[in-house]
Amino acid sequence: MNYSVIRYILCRVLEFAALFMTLPLLVGVLYREKSALCFLYVIAGCLIVSLIGRRFKPKSQVFYAKEGFVTVSLSWIILSLIGALPFYLSGEFPTYTDALFETISGLTTTGATILTDVEGLSRCIQFWRCFTHWIGGMGVLVLILAVLPLSGSYNMHLMRAESPGPSVGKLVPKIKNTAMILYGIYLAITLIEITALMLAGLNLYEAATLSFSTTGTGGFGLLNTSIGSYSTTIQVIFIVFMLLCGINFQIFYLLLIKKPKEALGSEELRYYLGIVLAASILITINVRGFFADGFQAFHHSLFQVVSVMTTTGFATLDYNVWPEFSRSIIFLLTLLGACAGSTGGGFKVSRLIVLLRSIKNEIFSVVHPRSIKKIHMDGHIVEDGVIKSIQVYTMIYAIIFLGSFVLVSLNEFDFVTNITAVATTFNNVGPGFNMVGPAGNYAAFSGFSKFVLMFDMLAGRLELLPILVLVSPRTWKRC
Amino acid sequence: MNYSVIRYILCRVLEFAALFMTLPLLVGVLYREKSALCFLYVIAGCLIVSLIGRRFKPKSQVFYAKEGFVTVSLSWIILSLIGALPFYLSGEFPTYTDALFETISGLTTTGATILTDVEGLSRCIQFWRCFTHWIGGMGVLVLILAVLPLSGSYNMHLMRAESPGPSVGKLVPKIKNTAMILYGIYLAITLIEITALMLAGLNLYEAATLSFSTTGTGGFGLLNTSIGSYSTTIQVIFIVFMLLCGINFQIFYLLLIKKPKEALGSEELRYYLGIVLAASILITINVRGFFADGFQAFHHSLFQVVSVMTTTGFATLDYNVWPEFSRSIIFLLTLLGACAGSTGGGFKVSRLIVLLRSIKNEIFSVVHPRSIKKIHMDGHIVEDGVIKSIQVYTMIYAIIFLGSFVLVSLNEFDFVTNITAVATTFNNVGPGFNMVGPAGNYAAFSGFSKFVLMFDMLAGRLELLPILVLVSPRTWKRC
Repeated sequence: MNYSVIRYILCRVLEFAALFMTLPLLVGVLYREKSALCFLYVIAGCLIVSLIGRRFKPKSQVFYAKEGFVTVSLSWIILSLIGALPFYLSGEFPTYTDALFETISGLTTTGATILTDVEGLSRCIQFWRCFTHWIGGMGVLVLILAVLPLSGSYNMHLMRAESPGPSVGKLVPKIKNTAMILYGIYLAITLIEITALMLAGLNLYEAATLSFSTTGTGGFGLLNTSIGSYSTTIQVIFIVFMLLCGINFQIFYLLLIKKPKEALGSEELRYYLGIVLAASILITINVRGFFADGFQAFHHSLFQVVSVMTTTGFATLDYNVWPEFSRSIIFLLTLLGACAGSTGGGFKVSRLIVLLRSIKNEIFSVVHPRSIKKIHMDGHIVEDGVIKSIQVYTMIYAIIFLGSFVLVSLNEFDFVTNITAVATTFNNVGPGFNMVGPAGNYAAFSGFSKFVLMFDMLAGRLELLPILVLVSPRTWKRC
Repeated sequence: MNYSVIRYILCRVLEFAALFMTLPLLVGVLYREKSALCFLYVIAGCLIVSLIGRRFKPKSQVFYAKEGFVTVSLSWIILSLIGALPFYLSGEFPTYTDALFETISGLTTTGATILTDVEGLSRCIQFWRCFTHWIGGMGVLVLILAVLPLSGSYNMHLMRAESPGPSVGKLVPKIKNTAMILYGIYLAITLIEITALMLAGLNLYEAATLSFSTTGTGGFGLLNTSIGSYSTTIQVIFIVFMLLCGINFQIFYLLLIKKPKEALGSEELRYYLGIVLAASILITINVRGFFADGFQAFHHSLFQVVSVMTTTGFATLDYNVWPEFSRSIIFLLTLLGACAGSTGGGFKVSRLIVLLRSIKNEIFSVVHPRSIKKIHMDGHIVEDGVIKSIQVYTMIYAIIFLGSFVLVSLNEFDFVTNITAVATTFNNVGPGFNMVGPAGNYAAFSGFSKFVLMFDMLAGRLELLPILVLVSPRTWKRC
């Protein structure tokens, strides 16, 4: 294990943490809030530690997948530990565990909260809370790759460990440029959404914070009713931008370089939109009686479907009271998640497509034992290694899911609370059902359960392997 | 598709169905019950149809895996359709759908019932109900293989399609002899249990029916309280025989041919017993307050753990009211199931072991990318084909599970009822939680839901592929 390079990159992460915090600091100063001071302390601390840590240059440039996974995991853990400090120091969160839960929930773009009253927070804290979604949405190491001049072998391993999806799509030959393009698109979408929301009547502060929550597919809001009290126009803007940020960003790039045929031919995109539409229609029919007219029923069905499927977790109403059939569909969407290469979490639509095709192949091979059929996606053959890794991913996913469920059940809350709390944190969605429904929160969970759920959020966001490599004893055997 | 051979074997299945029904007919005659007549009609019908169907000898002996899967699926469906007739004709079941549900639940050794009052049934009907467990436990085609002189190529394909577990263990080179040994052991265990139960105070009728339910790991009982009102001695006998029938029958064979070292060295056996013990202890601690002393707590915890893990589904009390932690463990055991090659259902312990090892390998390969590590079990290398089929099995398992969950939720019962109803039928256990808990039943489900659950029971018992091959359009394309 090349500790010196890892230390070097982690120091860089500290510097970026400090950089990020200047924004909420600025907000705090503008609104003359006392909590702003907390950001100042943490920024100073980060810079001092980084200054000391960076004095020793890395001895060796050796950097393999192992180092990549460990660096990414540690970066996220450190960023979480530091990000929680302003929450804790401001006194607006009861304990450091709660502050940490909120930060991990923010960075992993989950949006699960331990707060019972969001509106009571100071503005700079609220800003930071939503901004963590934006930081985590595209990933801090992708940003570092985009901005800093790091040489060759790091890049691919870091990118692969942090990016969601079964395979990393390099848009252009250089990882650095790929990272820059991704962040460019991300920033552009965010700015367009801020503008749209301001045109619809929100002020800059509201528009910016809520845009961070949308584009990061996070789900933290400014009001206790989530998105319920905003106008229909604003809600439609949210639907559009949630939907956009659940799409593989590669598609936007293809559109930018004027390859619309390739972009819109994406099978994952078609499945993604197809599932959103099908789920919305089924739920609309099922909840029709709850609304004055069919249009309203469809509007709210579509909003919750898009919100859950993109793993954002906004809500316009408490869908916990919806009929069981709609709840089941929402539960399945919670597990599924958005497209690979988007800012959304979950299992990912492309993994589902490959799985379904590998099952079809297996049945085919029973009927025609001697024929060999390859799995295709977007016209290309899916390599056996990718299929295998998706299958192993599914196993790990199932085992962590069930294990967490049993551990969380020690709280003695009800079955549905437990299973949906795990599903929704593991897939970075946010709200579940019953106690953790859209109108509920995670305050009542024990410290132990909160740590289980924090692990799930991180494992879900980093797609299992980085965290498992970090905690595997084998990683730390023999230098 | 070689239709003529399939027709020939299905006629044989009809004859065996007739043969099986002579037992409840005998019981009905002995107790002078009117319902006995129903068995007579059905027996006559089976024999007539078989006589006609068997007049044309099969033209070709071609028999591949495809034919094997289709034959096994159709045999089970026909056996279910016929087995339901006495239930329906006797008038003791409200509808044919309910009678069919009960028969499939019996044959697949699930033990889920649509009856609210089991004690109201006539004795011959009760006998047939429990006897279906025994028939389904080891499988009717395995019996046909053991008894009838079928030539070469059928055997392996039929055996593979009907036997539970990731790979079929041939005990001896000839399939016919393997099938005979398996049925011999099965019969011996059943006779020993009948004797033990009679020594403990039950009469022959009670001892026989309950032994069929135990050795088939089914779960139908004679009383509305399941096993709760029997003495502790009798309950302990059930624990022992449930535990025995959840073990791979290969182990009994190894013990018979005096290879105790190989038998007891089985990793699956050790994991199986380890999980039973660990789960029982955890639940004992969790439910200690419900009982007068620690011994009673352990006795009842052990009973339910063994009952659920072996997928029998007997209960000594309503564990639906136990704390959430215990319920979560029971839910996980429901999904897991017993050993491969046993009469128990579920996912199977050996599949879990291979999955866990393949996950460990995957993490290892990240840390040491250039090394290739094989997965071992019982000292042998697990072939890649087996690992792959286990992984695909898991995918199909998850998808059918979640799909059924959504379909069943159309009933608008609660989340826990829906998810445990699917889990418990799919894994052939029987009782779930809430409405379908040990004190509940499946009477309230709609016809549609009952058909979904019937599909799950059959797919679970036949381990997915046969049923999927049967319903796959590709199977029926071009002769």
